[in-house]
Amino acid sequence: MAGWRENVREVEPYVAGEQPKQTDMVKLNTNENPYPPSPKVQEALERTAANILRLYPDPTADELVTAIADRYNVIKSQVFVGVGSDDVIAMAFLTFFNNPEKKPVLFPDISYSFYDVWAECFRIPYKTVPLNENFEICTEDYRQPNGGIIFPNPNAPTGLAIGLDAIKEILDANPDQVVIVDEAYVDFGTDSAISLLDNYENLLVVQTFSKSRSMAGMRIGFAIGNEELISCLMNVRNSFNSYTMNCTAIAMGAAAVRDEEYFRETTQKIIETREWAKKELTALGFTYPDSKANFIFASHKSVAAEEIFRKLRERHIYVRYFNKPRINNYLRITIGTREEMQKLFDALKEILGAYNGECQ
Amino acid sequence: MAGWRENVREVEPYVAGEQPKQTDMVKLNTNENPYPPSPKVQEALERTAANILRLYPDPTADELVTAIADRYNVIKSQVFVGVGSDDVIAMAFLTFFNNPEKKPVLFPDISYSFYDVWAECFRIPYKTVPLNENFEICTEDYRQPNGGIIFPNPNAPTGLAIGLDAIKEILDANPDQVVIVDEAYVDFGTDSAISLLDNYENLLVVQTFSKSRSMAGMRIGFAIGNEELISCLMNVRNSFNSYTMNCTAIAMGAAAVRDEEYFRETTQKIIETREWAKKELTALGFTYPDSKANFIFASHKSVAAEEIFRKLRERHIYVRYFNKPRINNYLRITIGTREEMQKLFDALKEILGAYNGECQ
Repeated sequence: MAGWRENVREVEPYVAGEQPKQTDMVKLNTNENPYPPSPKVQEALERTAANILRLYPDPTADELVTAIADRYNVIKSQVFVGVGSDDVIAMAFLTFFNNPEKKPVLFPDISYSFYDVWAECFRIPYKTVPLNENFEICTEDYRQPNGGIIFPNPNAPTGLAIGLDAIKEILDANPDQVVIVDEAYVDFGTDSAISLLDNYENLLVVQTFSKSRSMAGMRIGFAIGNEELISCLMNVRNSFNSYTMNCTAIAMGAAAVRDEEYFRETTQKIIETREWAKKELTALGFTYPDSKANFIFASHKSVAAEEIFRKLRERHIYVRYFNKPRINNYLRITIGTREEMQKLFDALKEILGAYNGECQ
Repeated sequence: MAGWRENVREVEPYVAGEQPKQTDMVKLNTNENPYPPSPKVQEALERTAANILRLYPDPTADELVTAIADRYNVIKSQVFVGVGSDDVIAMAFLTFFNNPEKKPVLFPDISYSFYDVWAECFRIPYKTVPLNENFEICTEDYRQPNGGIIFPNPNAPTGLAIGLDAIKEILDANPDQVVIVDEAYVDFGTDSAISLLDNYENLLVVQTFSKSRSMAGMRIGFAIGNEELISCLMNVRNSFNSYTMNCTAIAMGAAAVRDEEYFRETTQKIIETREWAKKELTALGFTYPDSKANFIFASHKSVAAEEIFRKLRERHIYVRYFNKPRINNYLRITIGTREEMQKLFDALKEILGAYNGECQ
């Protein structure tokens, strides 16, 4: 056996949600937005001439950074953009989680499943902090020696959010560590920690265009923090790849973030559909944490989640099932359009009805 | 001073070529292609509906991978795509250069300036191997203990290429290490090492769409190797970011690589312009290694490179100058259109004429 195999980095690859391609499917498995991006994105796309592609993109992604800074009332040097929030958070792990004493980075045991994957890949020690029995983040658990902290707010896949006071407690207890709040789902009804930035120099807030801005396909994420944190991130990013954002991502992203009205309208529609979906799920015998995200994490009182998952799949309705400790009786259901949710509920009635011995 | 600063990764950031934005400029400083991408790319752009952006892109980038596999007569599982060849090579460093004995990765002392940046960022030991006095790679220098090898062919910024026999010598001497041939500039007249893949399982060939396919702005690079190498790369990439290629990059890249005729036509035009430019430069008193790339690395017999660089810049003609040992009297001049090169030569005549005391 050739020796080069011994030099290969061993990793536990992340397994993403399946991306089925049926035309008649109801796709509620990867937390995408059921509405198209802002019409301004279509216009920006139509304005794009292929000829600009021959030149390198603007490495500062100035058009996009300016639009984000304007929207969030920060200055441009407080904004870092990347290829989805996955790229942004990976760079943040690489940049900020290098404590010489090898103290572990902390994150919840039930959380976004990429955190441990990045830690493994970059050989960063980590420790998962159990959520309580109600799947809540308890701030006192983050008062232990650590090399950095990251958690999503609202958390995934539970959908539960914590308030700014709880975030402040975590920040106050950890002034010597960078604390990353991953706000992928914040726009569906949670207060952003961006408002805390003036008081906490160790806070980094990460958001994405994949959910509330309907642009998962364009791969845009961003971080907002103080200028020093952002400059550290940029140095590491530039030592990795100076041109990560392509021309179209810069232009389409800027067009999307400038259309505040469309953003409010579509996020509001999703919030309304979610609240209606909660009632429907309750009526069907499901329980769930009170989600503030664009998904609901639901468990049925009598039928196993894996069974429901399979039966939905047979009907080309895709939701997400994680075969992992503590959560293997839950389904993560993305909020689609009202019509898509109705199809889901109709199918659930059929599936659950069969278990109750009812006639169909 | 807050302790989080002690945990920040220290890096030497890569400094990219400047990206000036004058409208009247002649931009010969970052090895971009003077011709637009294939007309098929414009068509693909016009076919793109913003609505597809709401969904995650195909994580396998199948359309693009298929087009590349077809073009290079390999199977799809031999192809890895990334956000420019920078992303591909960074992933390859992370994946393959982990030898437990910490033997150094080897690359030429004069070479693409990102190699040492990646090594530093990922804390990979490395050793630069001096080119000979004619700026040539000497294969015997790569017969020393190492943890992997990477070199561009043709090399940058010299433009000099080595033949397949020389590459075979390096591969034969290093069966236990992954050898990466960075073929960013191969399409301007060098034989690709892809033809050696059937005989060397430790060979990884990297190419980019930024030069010969006129798509620097779209950020597309790829690696071709045996299935096992490619699968290792994918595992590491998936533990980093499963969705690096956005929808537009996948579609535009596939459209570009399928248009073989346009590719041949434009690369041939650049080769012809390069050969003509060599004669003009000789007539002006420049010497240069015999470039096989889309640039010429030239030094003037009597006027300092930095001086010429500055005077060209005053005239809004941008070339690249590296203030580094061994090469600080050279200019790297990208091959533009014939008209752009003529403007360069006219300016050089003026600048050099002034030094010779000639009338303008």
